[in-house]
Amino acid sequence: ARPRVGYFYVGNQTSSVFGELLRKSLVRDYKSVPIVVNEQTTAYDATVTMFLEDVGTLFVVRDAGILCGVLSRKDLLKLAIGQTALKEVPISIAMTRMPNIYTVTPETSIYDAGKLLIHAQVDSLPVVVPSESANGQWEVVGRVTKTTITRLFVELGESKQV
Amino acid sequence: ARPRVGYFYVGNQTSSVFGELLRKSLVRDYKSVPIVVNEQTTAYDATVTMFLEDVGTLFVVRDAGILCGVLSRKDLLKLAIGQTALKEVPISIAMTRMPNIYTVTPETSIYDAGKLLIHAQVDSLPVVVPSESANGQWEVVGRVTKTTITRLFVELGESKQV
Repeated sequence: ARPRVGYFYVGNQTSSVFGELLRKSLVRDYKSVPIVVNEQTTAYDATVTMFLEDVGTLFVVRDAGILCGVLSRKDLLKLAIGQTALKEVPISIAMTRMPNIYTVTPETSIYDAGKLLIHAQVDSLPVVVPSESANGQWEVVGRVTKTTITRLFVELGESKQV
Repeated sequence: ARPRVGYFYVGNQTSSVFGELLRKSLVRDYKSVPIVVNEQTTAYDATVTMFLEDVGTLFVVRDAGILCGVLSRKDLLKLAIGQTALKEVPISIAMTRMPNIYTVTPETSIYDAGKLLIHAQVDSLPVVVPSESANGQWEVVGRVTKTTITRLFVELGESKQV
């Protein structure tokens, strides 16, 4: 039988070129604007902000945009089914805190960001850079979410150049 | 200057082969199990089910798995910030109802499912087939979410064959 070398060659070529492409595509070129609140925000106001900004995750920052927490819809729902009055509690009691937050930088590849979203089981990752004013702290400069990845997936399927 | 024909050829080849691959990959091979509740479930119990099953969206069904609604974390949070007592209201007051629900079938391509997730601005799509018992109704047989797409994106980046 005729060996289907050409067929397999094209297949492997395609998938390795595609893998390389995803590793070369950086978060800096695909990230969205981060939506931030501060720690004193009430759970009620944070929920309203999520609706107004149409996001599922808020990043919690201190002065100069230093990342100190992440708040998801899941965190807020957990409060809501408790005895908690959403208008009376600050989000600091419900958020995930630094250093327990998974982050990426603008130089992280889109492939690694996708992998981290799956591994960490979160919908959204803060994009951070080292703070210029606060030593050892991180400033939030963007967000990468499962929506970012899904949108890119569709663009790739449309055969657009990345 | 030497024309970089080979370079561009490989690029276009790659992206069109990739696009074709996404169009040939079907929802049937990538869908997850649907998590369903019925219309009389309270908002409180639905929230608990979301936590126990670790999903962000529930499908609401009548007998024999007929799809009648979709309930997201967002729908529940909207209730929570209202005056609503989550233990006292059925989810039927908060869910999106048929026929206003975006669905896919097992034969839908993964590419089209990704496109619909972005276009419809939802996190999860019910996978449905025509009901054998109820004429003109749809039975839920799976779910496709932004997590499904993100996971596939990472697999493709690992250069696995699809």
